[in-house]
Amino acid sequence: MRASDLVTEFPTVALDTPVGEAARLLAEQDLPGLIVVDERGRPLSILPGTQVLRLALPTYCIDDPALARVIDEAHADVFLRSLAGRTVREALPDKPRELPVTGPDATVLELATLMARTHSPLVAVVDGGALRGAVTLQALVNRLIGQ
Amino acid sequence: MRASDLVTEFPTVALDTPVGEAARLLAEQDLPGLIVVDERGRPLSILPGTQVLRLALPTYCIDDPALARVIDEAHADVFLRSLAGRTVREALPDKPRELPVTGPDATVLELATLMARTHSPLVAVVDGGALRGAVTLQALVNRLIGQ
Repeated sequence: MRASDLVTEFPTVALDTPVGEAARLLAEQDLPGLIVVDERGRPLSILPGTQVLRLALPTYCIDDPALARVIDEAHADVFLRSLAGRTVREALPDKPRELPVTGPDATVLELATLMARTHSPLVAVVDGGALRGAVTLQALVNRLIGQ
Repeated sequence: MRASDLVTEFPTVALDTPVGEAARLLAEQDLPGLIVVDERGRPLSILPGTQVLRLALPTYCIDDPALARVIDEAHADVFLRSLAGRTVREALPDKPRELPVTGPDATVLELATLMARTHSPLVAVVDGGALRGAVTLQALVNRLIGQ
């Protein structure tokens, strides 16, 4: 069994996709994360759902969680709604890091190792430079336990 | 809106739960992760799905992903099936780290910050020492975008 047996089509977002739209995609399609592609459709980054959420937060909350605690409910709602103008571009990490991207011939063990190492519940599958889709943690675990 | 409005019952595992059973629970119930509880039902750890998967892998793959690449398909299947005797206990990190656990009064902003900081798609909600359940990333994002 190879990545090509487990891969399914997967929605993508671009660098200039608004954060609100990315969050909506995640929620409506019940996705574990999103694939960010360049203008040629090649994966630039894989964002786990928690990191899409991070985009919607004021940075001071990430730096100091005590601040999230003291901000009252009304303020919190204001912050979470003020996503206008923020795009996926701002979510990309400054430093390059290992991306959960592999080829169609990757084995189950390779897929599982990539997910575990990169803490990503999805792995993008690229074939000859073009995105074929993704293998999700759910699809992989289902297959591993023989469902 | 508070954690108590978003919390749902959530399956738990114990330290001596076999890894195979944990993986099955994750797959069958389509969960983003698992809550590990002590003998009194209090959360000891929250394991994202990717870290449950990690349990099912030989450690040399995590340390050196090139090895996952050179092991052929037949071997990979053997490793992934040889889970007998491994338990959730082995998944707990050596060093204590910030756990995504909060009280029923946590605001949406606090929940979102916890998920983003700890890279966990679920937050356990504890009330007076007892586990009430969890808020999932999915439930939180759905609420944030007004679905």
